[in-house]
Amino acid sequence: MSAHKGADASLASIANLDFDRASRRGAPEAILCDAKSTDQLVRIARAIRERSGDTGTAPALATLFTRLDTDKAAALGEELPGFFFDEEASIGAWPASEPTLTGGLVTIACAGTSDLPVAREAELTARYLGRPTRLIPDIGIAGLHRLLERLPELRESACIIAVAGMDGALPTVIAGQVACPVVALPTSVGYGVAAGGISAALTMLSACAPGIGVVNIDNGYGAGHLAAQIARWAPRDTE
Amino acid sequence: MSAHKGADASLASIANLDFDRASRRGAPEAILCDAKSTDQLVRIARAIRERSGDTGTAPALATLFTRLDTDKAAALGEELPGFFFDEEASIGAWPASEPTLTGGLVTIACAGTSDLPVAREAELTARYLGRPTRLIPDIGIAGLHRLLERLPELRESACIIAVAGMDGALPTVIAGQVACPVVALPTSVGYGVAAGGISAALTMLSACAPGIGVVNIDNGYGAGHLAAQIARWAPRDTE
Amino acid sequence: MSAHKGADASLASIANLDFDRASRRGAPEAILCDAKSTDQLVRIARAIRERSGDTGTAPALATLFTRLDTDKAAALGEELPGFFFDEEASIGAWPASEPTLTGGLVTIACAGTSDLPVAREAELTARYLGRPTRLIPDIGIAGLHRLLERLPELRESACIIAVAGMDGALPTVIAGQVACPVVALPTSVGYGVAAGGISAALTMLSACAPGIGVVNIDNGYGAGHLAAQIARWAPRDTE
Amino acid sequence: MSAHKGADASLASIANLDFDRASRRGAPEAILCDAKSTDQLVRIARAIRERSGDTGTAPALATLFTRLDTDKAAALGEELPGFFFDEEASIGAWPASEPTLTGGLVTIACAGTSDLPVAREAELTARYLGRPTRLIPDIGIAGLHRLLERLPELRESACIIAVAGMDGALPTVIAGQVACPVVALPTSVGYGVAAGGISAALTMLSACAPGIGVVNIDNGYGAGHLAAQIARWAPRDTE
Amino acid sequence: MSAHKGADASLASIANLDFDRASRRGAPEAILCDAKSTDQLVRIARAIRERSGDTGTAPALATLFTRLDTDKAAALGEELPGFFFDEEASIGAWPASEPTLTGGLVTIACAGTSDLPVAREAELTARYLGRPTRLIPDIGIAGLHRLLERLPELRESACIIAVAGMDGALPTVIAGQVACPVVALPTSVGYGVAAGGISAALTMLSACAPGIGVVNIDNGYGAGHLAAQIARWAPRDTE
Amino acid sequence: MSAHKGADASLASIANLDFDRASRRGAPEAILCDAKSTDQLVRIARAIRERSGDTGTAPALATLFTRLDTDKAAALGEELPGFFFDEEASIGAWPASEPTLTGGLVTIACAGTSDLPVAREAELTARYLGRPTRLIPDIGIAGLHRLLERLPELRESACIIAVAGMDGALPTVIAGQVACPVVALPTSVGYGVAAGGISAALTMLSACAPGIGVVNIDNGYGAGHLAAQIARWAPRDTE
Amino acid sequence: MSAHKGADASLASIANLDFDRASRRGAPEAILCDAKSTDQLVRIARAIRERSGDTGTAPALATLFTRLDTDKAAALGEELPGFFFDEEASIGAWPASEPTLTGGLVTIACAGTSDLPVAREAELTARYLGRPTRLIPDIGIAGLHRLLERLPELRESACIIAVAGMDGALPTVIAGQVACPVVALPTSVGYGVAAGGISAALTMLSACAPGIGVVNIDNGYGAGHLAAQIARWAPRDTE
Amino acid sequence: MSAHKGADASLASIANLDFDRASRRGAPEAILCDAKSTDQLVRIARAIRERSGDTGTAPALATLFTRLDTDKAAALGEELPGFFFDEEASIGAWPASEPTLTGGLVTIACAGTSDLPVAREAELTARYLGRPTRLIPDIGIAGLHRLLERLPELRESACIIAVAGMDGALPTVIAGQVACPVVALPTSVGYGVAAGGISAALTMLSACAPGIGVVNIDNGYGAGHLAAQIARWAPRDTE
Repeated sequence: MSAHKGADASLASIANLDFDRASRRGAPEAILCDAKSTDQLVRIARAIRERSGDTGTAPALATLFTRLDTDKAAALGEELPGFFFDEEASIGAWPASEPTLTGGLVTIACAGTSDLPVAREAELTARYLGRPTRLIPDIGIAGLHRLLERLPELRESACIIAVAGMDGALPTVIAGQVACPVVALPTSVGYGVAAGGISAALTMLSACAPGIGVVNIDNGYGAGHLAAQIARWAPRDTE
Repeated sequence: MSAHKGADASLASIANLDFDRASRRGAPEAILCDAKSTDQLVRIARAIRERSGDTGTAPALATLFTRLDTDKAAALGEELPGFFFDEEASIGAWPASEPTLTGGLVTIACAGTSDLPVAREAELTARYLGRPTRLIPDIGIAGLHRLLERLPELRESACIIAVAGMDGALPTVIAGQVACPVVALPTSVGYGVAAGGISAALTMLSACAPGIGVVNIDNGYGAGHLAAQIARWAPRDTE
Repeated sequence: MSAHKGADASLASIANLDFDRASRRGAPEAILCDAKSTDQLVRIARAIRERSGDTGTAPALATLFTRLDTDKAAALGEELPGFFFDEEASIGAWPASEPTLTGGLVTIACAGTSDLPVAREAELTARYLGRPTRLIPDIGIAGLHRLLERLPELRESACIIAVAGMDGALPTVIAGQVACPVVALPTSVGYGVAAGGISAALTMLSACAPGIGVVNIDNGYGAGHLAAQIARWAPRDTE
Repeated sequence: MSAHKGADASLASIANLDFDRASRRGAPEAILCDAKSTDQLVRIARAIRERSGDTGTAPALATLFTRLDTDKAAALGEELPGFFFDEEASIGAWPASEPTLTGGLVTIACAGTSDLPVAREAELTARYLGRPTRLIPDIGIAGLHRLLERLPELRESACIIAVAGMDGALPTVIAGQVACPVVALPTSVGYGVAAGGISAALTMLSACAPGIGVVNIDNGYGAGHLAAQIARWAPRDTE
Repeated sequence: MSAHKGADASLASIANLDFDRASRRGAPEAILCDAKSTDQLVRIARAIRERSGDTGTAPALATLFTRLDTDKAAALGEELPGFFFDEEASIGAWPASEPTLTGGLVTIACAGTSDLPVAREAELTARYLGRPTRLIPDIGIAGLHRLLERLPELRESACIIAVAGMDGALPTVIAGQVACPVVALPTSVGYGVAAGGISAALTMLSACAPGIGVVNIDNGYGAGHLAAQIARWAPRDTE
Repeated sequence: MSAHKGADASLASIANLDFDRASRRGAPEAILCDAKSTDQLVRIARAIRERSGDTGTAPALATLFTRLDTDKAAALGEELPGFFFDEEASIGAWPASEPTLTGGLVTIACAGTSDLPVAREAELTARYLGRPTRLIPDIGIAGLHRLLERLPELRESACIIAVAGMDGALPTVIAGQVACPVVALPTSVGYGVAAGGISAALTMLSACAPGIGVVNIDNGYGAGHLAAQIARWAPRDTE
Repeated sequence: MSAHKGADASLASIANLDFDRASRRGAPEAILCDAKSTDQLVRIARAIRERSGDTGTAPALATLFTRLDTDKAAALGEELPGFFFDEEASIGAWPASEPTLTGGLVTIACAGTSDLPVAREAELTARYLGRPTRLIPDIGIAGLHRLLERLPELRESACIIAVAGMDGALPTVIAGQVACPVVALPTSVGYGVAAGGISAALTMLSACAPGIGVVNIDNGYGAGHLAAQIARWAPRDTE
Repeated sequence: MSAHKGADASLASIANLDFDRASRRGAPEAILCDAKSTDQLVRIARAIRERSGDTGTAPALATLFTRLDTDKAAALGEELPGFFFDEEASIGAWPASEPTLTGGLVTIACAGTSDLPVAREAELTARYLGRPTRLIPDIGIAGLHRLLERLPELRESACIIAVAGMDGALPTVIAGQVACPVVALPTSVGYGVAAGGISAALTMLSACAPGIGVVNIDNGYGAGHLAAQIARWAPRDTE
């Protein structure tokens, strides 16, 4: 390991950034921040900024920083000029500007008020990957009329992210009413047998209605990424 | 144990019938048949018939035999004159006649065709305990209009048994639309993470809508019994 | 979403109150407070108060606020005049006055002293939904005589909520002795294999005695709601 | 229930076909066959055929029959002229003709030979819903060169279904190399801690690479349906 | 391994009998038969018989053969003269004669008729290890009076084995009423969440009453062995 | 509930002390303190002291207070003169004096240093119930010679409590070497798959050696109580 | 896929043999047979034989066929001249001749007679990969002297495979006594909480003694392969 | 226990150091620190230092202190002159000097930046047991090129420790490409279904590629120990 020296070496000893990802996958790498130290994040941010200088142009799409708290966001803000940070969704982006929006509409449908932080992480991800988005809060199935009223809006979507904790039944009900794919996003909101979101995840995997793909519990980033990919080729209004 | 002799002794070595239950609980003991041998069941049947002769009158309510297969049912039929047996629901009853129906309506709402055997076990139990019943098949939430069309019928109920496997979301959706209690009956129908019904049971316990009591997976007897107790004091039409 | 403006818009972006629930289900919506921010709760409280002003009359039944801590309760108290708050049960109500009590008696039977907070949440819920209630503490089955002494009281009930953590065996023992339905309410009190209440919930679902409906662990609100529905039509004294 | 009479009544007592699904969801209902009796399936088949006669035209898309064994397939074949049946995939279709293929390519990538039946169920579903398909067998990650050789083909896809049991790592590896969405389909192939497929399902939900939606274990139908929806708007060749 | 020759060698390649156990532990080794082939059992039986001949005297205590089916028992019977076999308990013994009974009474209390095979395995084990025994069937807690009637008998015991499946609550209730230790023996009788006996085992470990030691599900042999050890020093009547 | 008044009433609303337990079970009730408030404990302590005054004599055996922290112990000390408290074992006793020691020796064998607090809770319990005790620390099976050196001491026991976390293998190894019963006490010490002690509990239930009864994870009180009962009739030295 | 033709094409549609594995990994691919049809296996066998003919020489190491039953073995025997098959271990090999044995000794230590089939699968795998082996049966820790007697033999090993079901404690005890690595191989032998081997696998992962690597339940092939790799560089006698 | 006196006695009451381990196992005992108090650790350190004085020479290999925090490390530093402490890896060593490095190279390959603390614990352990080591960070399989670039380095290893949380797929991919054994080390890094590392551990046990041994979650010490044993006899460069 003696070949690792200087500024680059200090990054190489902790991380191996996937700068190639944008060309390979159509979206740049995202940095999961909660299990990294502030020092590690700063070193990563510096490499991203330097890389940006190397190419002489800002990248087409922003690098996202997920599960980011306020303190670490402040430290990143000092390295990355104009850094974007959304506290509720615990997400950051650099450069801060959103790309031109293309493809079909991604709708984020939310079962309860408590699911909003994860839902917003999903929405911001899809938007930073270039899709138009709409968030519909609090249409859980315990009051079905709330969902039925929003059906016309839901049917305009190219992809719907259905976010729910507890019984996790929202994706099935929605998928049964629309023609587009549904990304099921379980949340850890809940208590008792629903604590941690496993119960919601199992419900979603067991859904009777086809057309549902499930992501990990609280994985708003993954849901937004998948939805952005799904809606990529769709027309703006699917009806 | 030397006090146990003769015909009675042979029963006492295997079972201790709870003849007192009808007066204590308002419903006679039921015999769970699948883990008992034919010989054990015959000895139990004989004791029930003799007891009936002792009191000189048929009991007000029939004794139920649950999880009963055709061969054991035939053996019971030889001991108990006019024995009732429903093969689909795997349930038997003696005496065969239903009691006068009183109290509110018990509706059994079924998510899918495959849930019917358990649903019918629940229906027959409620009926043999003296409640009027109605079974609504195949109104799973993947096609919501099927459920919405039956809402007026569901709202006539004093208690609804919602039967579902897989995602187990039916009880929540129904409970959100009605004023009466819902008994949630998970079934073991399903595969993958839904195999065995645990996933459905967890969904039901996690239901966002209040007003739901859950019973064990495939426990049609328990659901029917509970629903009959719940509907006992209700008027015939609850609307 | 640009149509959402002003005071109403600020609520619509986070919640979609189910004002219709009282007419549809016979009980108003309850607000689960632990995963909502104080700011979100205040916005919800304001909407409830304004709605009350709109109709010109106080609602027949209070809105309940569950899993509410002291700080949030204080904030709600500033929005909702005369707000009721019970710290032990972590429950609030507005308006504070209880409705006229009708229907059968709901008894809350408690296995141990540690189960009392959840038991009281259940009792207050049933009472705010209009049922007479009685709480019997500390009759766990390790000392059976304590339970047997209270049997006459238990038998006066139209519905019994049996609250227990650890082995969760109380509902079975009670259900075997009474004619009314039993709502089994597992608590997360316990340690080792009983930690979190899963063990108690499994025991209750596996109960040998029929006539038991199980709710989620620590779901005192759900148990009280279900019991209030069950006891709705029953006479005051069921014996 | 007395209103249910004649031929229609006999179906209504067991099933409630969702004839509306094609217009609502873009795909007709599929019949899950393993938990239905032959008699029930025959009644359902008759209703489908009669409905087809009613409208005077064959439906645009075939009705699929999943988890179908040879005996039940033979019985369906007598009701539905020209019935299609694939024994390996346990799937049937009526009418037998595939629709015109449109949209992007759906590739089914398979980790091992033992995953083929589920993979073929997914492929046939996507094809009967109108997408071009390609199946790539046995490219599990224990021999990475096999996968790397097929990368150009994988990159032509609008959606890839990655099928794997045991460690379930194939979807992550593929998703990291392509720009299109990946549907992760866990199979129950495996033994020890991998028995039943739960281990593979957990791996897939935990995937480090974004762009993956997971379906239930062995749910080839659900995977094919979702992939067909995802690839609907994509061009034939995505590169 | 070349030192292993002839008749003894053939045993040594599969088993290593613990002839020393009787002196070390006070009870001879027992042979678990269900996962051994008939050929393996015959070789083991021959070694036991030869060993008995070597010492010139029958051992003080019989060797037990557990989880033994009828076919294997017949094969053992040809090797071991006068071999004892109880088909219900699936247990064999050689020599067949019981030892002189000493120590306190071991009572086996059984929740339901279906628990009898495991209960009898426990009873026969305790008896072959030299304790007086008494089996009380079918005193499950759903009908508490059945248990209360037997309390005087239970209180005569030096150790009680409480056998139960489903909710597994019998040991707690009994332990709360007696002064002697209780061995809790969960059975796999049950369905739904109680299938396989895990639910019963968890209940027993979580028991609120102290004085309970739990053994593995369906381990009648282990329960009988432990109870025989516990009752070893006790007087014949403990009251 | 209006009959509950004054000092006694305030206790009755929270607890129902089992003063009868000493005569029924041979040991007084123990108070589990961790889920009770200081106020509740003080009320309970007052009732115990008053009861002691009522009878005019100190009870033969002390009341134990388990899972007791330092603050609550101080509060109890103000109510109960001479209150005994062991901080490491988190146990209290009143009256503080140990009873005359009778019966056989109870040995507490401990796998690791980290298991000591639970081991000491077990030891103090057995001692306050009147048995002589000996604690052997740190003889885990990763260094077998440490255990083998202590075999003579272990064989002097009438009952051994084997305490272990992580792999939980100590009870099996000990039980295979001794004639007395072994109480297996799993601890929550451990990490990874051993976190919380479930892994140790499963190992102990699966033990190949008979003669083992398992108690709940970290249940030192239960283990000590059971061991005291088991050793009650044994001679002081069992060899 | 139209490029796949003739004999090769028929294999390519189901499998993608990893002929390169021997050079890359030092051991050829093994064929897991239980989830493959006889027809699939015959096609694979033919390709292996043809490949062998292509190179003009027999491969240095045999291809192994694991989880192979008698019928499939017979079919393979017709394709592969001199095919080796061991029925107890369910393993086949072609060519049948063992390689020259090199490296250190691999000892397979077995807890019970019932673990022998898996132990023999491990032994044959290690031997066909070129290591000298020794199998020691039935030295489970319930009779520790049996293990202690074999310690000198165990200490001659370069790697020990410790095979155990039920409590799975054998690897810890052995690893604590030797200097070489231990491969822990859990088996599905067992019942109750030990059923399926999960309990044994958890115990082994939780082992207090370092120096243990765990493989999947019943994965004798994997254990033998790993042990052969570990012992590759060791001297014949490690003491 | 009266024989335990003075300084030694105070250690004997809490721990039983395995000074014999170095000669028996080739590596000295390690002290797991997180569940021991500072006082206990100081007493242990003193005994180790005194023992070292007794023998008159420093031991060949250092004693390791794992899961050690900064405060406890400071206390140990006062007892043990020149004590080595690595805060990131939470590991200490005394004496501080590394042994002469012998045997083959141990490579620690890390899936993500967050896995580094556990990876470094593994690396330091292997190095203090005398092996040359190399750590390769951040080569998770979501960006396969990062792993492929390091293949030549990986192939120089005598043993590879593959460290991963979340999907845990890294060990399988690596094992498929190299000839040496792979130690799979799951980490608790992750969220949702991957929380705590169980999902990663299951993936690793289910790995399709042979040649993998799994250790407990976050058990860097165990992985480093096992790898050091495996690489003991190997040449410095295995290619």
